[in-house]
Amino acid sequence: MTDTRLLAIDWGTSSARAYALDARGTVIDERSAPLGVQRVTDGRFADALAKLCGDALSTRVPAIACGMIGSRQGWIEAPYRDCPADIDAIAGALTRVPDTPLLIVPGLIVRDAAGVPDVMRGEETQIIGALDDSGSRGIYVLPGTHSKWAIADAQGIVNFASFMTGELYGVLREHSILGRLAGDGSDKAAFDRGVETSLRGGAALIHDLFSARTLALAGVLASDGVGDYLSGLLVGAEIAAARAWAARNALDRARVTLVGEQALCERYAHALQLAGIDATQGPAAAAARGLWRIAQRAGLVPSVVPS
Amino acid sequence: MTDTRLLAIDWGTSSARAYALDARGTVIDERSAPLGVQRVTDGRFADALAKLCGDALSTRVPAIACGMIGSRQGWIEAPYRDCPADIDAIAGALTRVPDTPLLIVPGLIVRDAAGVPDVMRGEETQIIGALDDSGSRGIYVLPGTHSKWAIADAQGIVNFASFMTGELYGVLREHSILGRLAGDGSDKAAFDRGVETSLRGGAALIHDLFSARTLALAGVLASDGVGDYLSGLLVGAEIAAARAWAARNALDRARVTLVGEQALCERYAHALQLAGIDATQGPAAAAARGLWRIAQRAGLVPSVVPS
Repeated sequence: MTDTRLLAIDWGTSSARAYALDARGTVIDERSAPLGVQRVTDGRFADALAKLCGDALSTRVPAIACGMIGSRQGWIEAPYRDCPADIDAIAGALTRVPDTPLLIVPGLIVRDAAGVPDVMRGEETQIIGALDDSGSRGIYVLPGTHSKWAIADAQGIVNFASFMTGELYGVLREHSILGRLAGDGSDKAAFDRGVETSLRGGAALIHDLFSARTLALAGVLASDGVGDYLSGLLVGAEIAAARAWAARNALDRARVTLVGEQALCERYAHALQLAGIDATQGPAAAAARGLWRIAQRAGLVPSVVPS
Repeated sequence: MTDTRLLAIDWGTSSARAYALDARGTVIDERSAPLGVQRVTDGRFADALAKLCGDALSTRVPAIACGMIGSRQGWIEAPYRDCPADIDAIAGALTRVPDTPLLIVPGLIVRDAAGVPDVMRGEETQIIGALDDSGSRGIYVLPGTHSKWAIADAQGIVNFASFMTGELYGVLREHSILGRLAGDGSDKAAFDRGVETSLRGGAALIHDLFSARTLALAGVLASDGVGDYLSGLLVGAEIAAARAWAARNALDRARVTLVGEQALCERYAHALQLAGIDATQGPAAAAARGLWRIAQRAGLVPSVVPS
């Protein structure tokens, strides 16, 4: 790994993934380990970093990380930066972990019209990695435990909002009466029905969730369909709420890019299509691309790629 | 208890409450036990009934029950009746448990404009018990695990809708990241803030839930306020959705009666007031009153009270 010019680490809550990048910003090596912030005990982050990176870790190679490693529960807090946030401002606000080569990307905080804050940590880097070359303003959707919808352009990240979709699915599936009704199978038609129920005018999740129970009781929904119907209700509620949010930001007809794990993005692309929204899948390893771009702006690596 | 003319049992999922009523329909004795449907094993409902009622149980006294005892998981299934449902139709559809004096009140099923079913079991009896003497059409709100809003008049129950408010609160409080942020204390201002957030135009629960986390992270919400803020968000989302539902039923200016446990009803009355809705508390022991009224219509007890 003598060609390595940057170690880039996507360091989340449950797992960490390290990339070695060469002078062109190409990923030449990649490793992941279950060494997320919640799994590192007694603050032994230095050991975790050494284990994750092995020989590639060296004081001669700059290292940069994004994600929960910069949270209060992480190695060192990289304070939230205000959004709108230019890429240059983000790159100028890296927090160094003392006595290591590691720099941590700050998360972002934004306030809505009522002053209520929203935050992201790690997703800002994925979005920067997914920015397309045209530089036009678009919407970036990152599905997950706490899904993010963000508005971004070549300058940086303009606005964003979070949705508790994945976490709601998890707690309802594991711990509610709906989970007890759900079988292990899957049912695409049930997913579509859930999405369409939530997209309907006047839909209200707190009421519609109960229909997962009543449709099952009435025999309309087989137990194998309950999980997908619940998933569809939640993804549909996210899309309905986010569409209204995008419209308030005058971006209801913007290009939509999905960023994240492929199967989940495909599920979202399908649900978005039911809402009349075309979405394209962003690049794989968006976090590595974003960390490279931030490292370029921070002067850690050359900003002009050698030809 | 020789004056007992009716044994009336509110038999739910976790507990059961039995009332002895005299010839005037007055409760002269009352007992409860943790003998709800989920706690009776191997179908030993007869033993549970005997334990609950003791000497009062006799073949000479009619007995009537409502609630989950009539569900598929209960003693015997009392099939759902279609709503709108007149009290007479409900009283004419009691299901007898073979070889016992016990009759079970059916639950109700209603379908919305899209054909999606909603159900109640036990609440129909509480609503009948809470009906006021004027006979004018009003809204009855029964807060709980699965809150019910119903439209009813002297004839019976016209329409209703369920909201998963209590269950969502439970699973989020116990199992989500929000619960981990929450202290044990209470904070009335945080409850109000949650209600008002959900009542705001454009509010979307799936997004707003995340604000319980960000407001706590930002230090705006103390850990003791997180639980009440979450509760406010959910109760507010229920009220916003139910108000729209009532408006669709041309009842947005109807009288609202709260039925249920007093502290919870007071919490709802306060949240309703924040939404500009005045609500009054219905009678205590609404289930006993409802069972008496149904028993009268079924001819089990005199329909004219002796003077």
